[in-house]
Amino acid sequence: MSIDARLSELGLTLPEVPAPVASYVNCVRSGNLLHLSGGLPFDGETKVTGKVPTDQSVEAAQEAARMIILNRLAIVRQELGSLDHVARIVSLQGFVSSEPDFYDHPKVINGASDLLLEIFGARGKHSRIAVGVAALPLNASVEISLVVEAA
Amino acid sequence: MSIDARLSELGLTLPEVPAPVASYVNCVRSGNLLHLSGGLPFDGETKVTGKVPTDQSVEAAQEAARMIILNRLAIVRQELGSLDHVARIVSLQGFVSSEPDFYDHPKVINGASDLLLEIFGARGKHSRIAVGVAALPLNASVEISLVVEAA
Amino acid sequence: MSIDARLSELGLTLPEVPAPVASYVNCVRSGNLLHLSGGLPFDGETKVTGKVPTDQSVEAAQEAARMIILNRLAIVRQELGSLDHVARIVSLQGFVSSEPDFYDHPKVINGASDLLLEIFGARGKHSRIAVGVAALPLNASVEISLVVEAA
Repeated sequence: MSIDARLSELGLTLPEVPAPVASYVNCVRSGNLLHLSGGLPFDGETKVTGKVPTDQSVEAAQEAARMIILNRLAIVRQELGSLDHVARIVSLQGFVSSEPDFYDHPKVINGASDLLLEIFGARGKHSRIAVGVAALPLNASVEISLVVEAA
Repeated sequence: MSIDARLSELGLTLPEVPAPVASYVNCVRSGNLLHLSGGLPFDGETKVTGKVPTDQSVEAAQEAARMIILNRLAIVRQELGSLDHVARIVSLQGFVSSEPDFYDHPKVINGASDLLLEIFGARGKHSRIAVGVAALPLNASVEISLVVEAA
Repeated sequence: MSIDARLSELGLTLPEVPAPVASYVNCVRSGNLLHLSGGLPFDGETKVTGKVPTDQSVEAAQEAARMIILNRLAIVRQELGSLDHVARIVSLQGFVSSEPDFYDHPKVINGASDLLLEIFGARGKHSRIAVGVAALPLNASVEISLVVEAA
């Protein structure tokens, strides 16, 4: 099954490719690796902002992490022409805007990791860093970057 | 001398390969680079948790960083069959669960860096990022990821 | 125009290659990628320290980000012999020592990104992560690492 068919099966559609919020580009390819910029959980009027778990619950932050994967995959599709050309999700860096006494960052970032597995199966299994940071750009609740291997 | 012999000489043994705490894998190989997930200073009942330097001293956090290197190398050995197949430790990312007025993160992460030099010699010389973050998964005091080049 | 000529045109000079503040090296090359360590905004007596925006303004932190690019490029020049051998700035990781309610990290890191574009043109367009962290080594206001592709 193509990845586009799999997205449909999961009831998912990719958003418009987001514009970077500053002086950089969404993606740089070096060899067969795509290095994606950190993405934020913003889609049109929908913006998931504030600290976890005070301003946003773990569940809301998980959904934010899913949103970011969809906007990162929109970039990958634009870059490769088709998501079928993804050989492997190599690594994921997840940053959670975190209260100093919040320790469930893995659960938040699982929103992203689980979705990658659902979409790509074994090719979606990635290495990962998850940390809690003091604050994120534009008060985003989550920021995620990816390194993706092209076929 | 083999790296296993060097570990013995240093009186070190590698722990069991740790289970990832969430939906990801310990290591993804792309080309000749191993991308390791962020590791935590947990080994059976021993868990180094809390902020530096209030909950854990610099010395205790250095020891935590050493623990993580040992559990990361257990993963590398599993992946490559032998640590003798390590060509180079390319890069290390070190995150310290930090009070906002703590600035000795380099000393903490030296626990990891010094151990890599002791074990691998010149092959262990790596580039590095060290930062202090608001909080880490499961209240870990330190999280470290590696990129390793295989021979 | 050579990059050295471009630096002159911009009125820029690169500092001495900085000594790492701990047990690591400034740069590791793996294949055609240079992995640079995180750099700090320190140049001789000049040290930009403290949190943004309380201890340092956004503008001062932008200037700190520029300082780091210059000291990172000094390392790249040492490694490659000439900055003309830079094929692409692949990725940039920017960490800002951030108050928990500061959200303009992209503006700070633009100090680095804009300078890379000024110096390298299209080759300077990079992917990027920008986050706000609890504290940085030696109380630096900004830390930046790069991955650079050699020609």
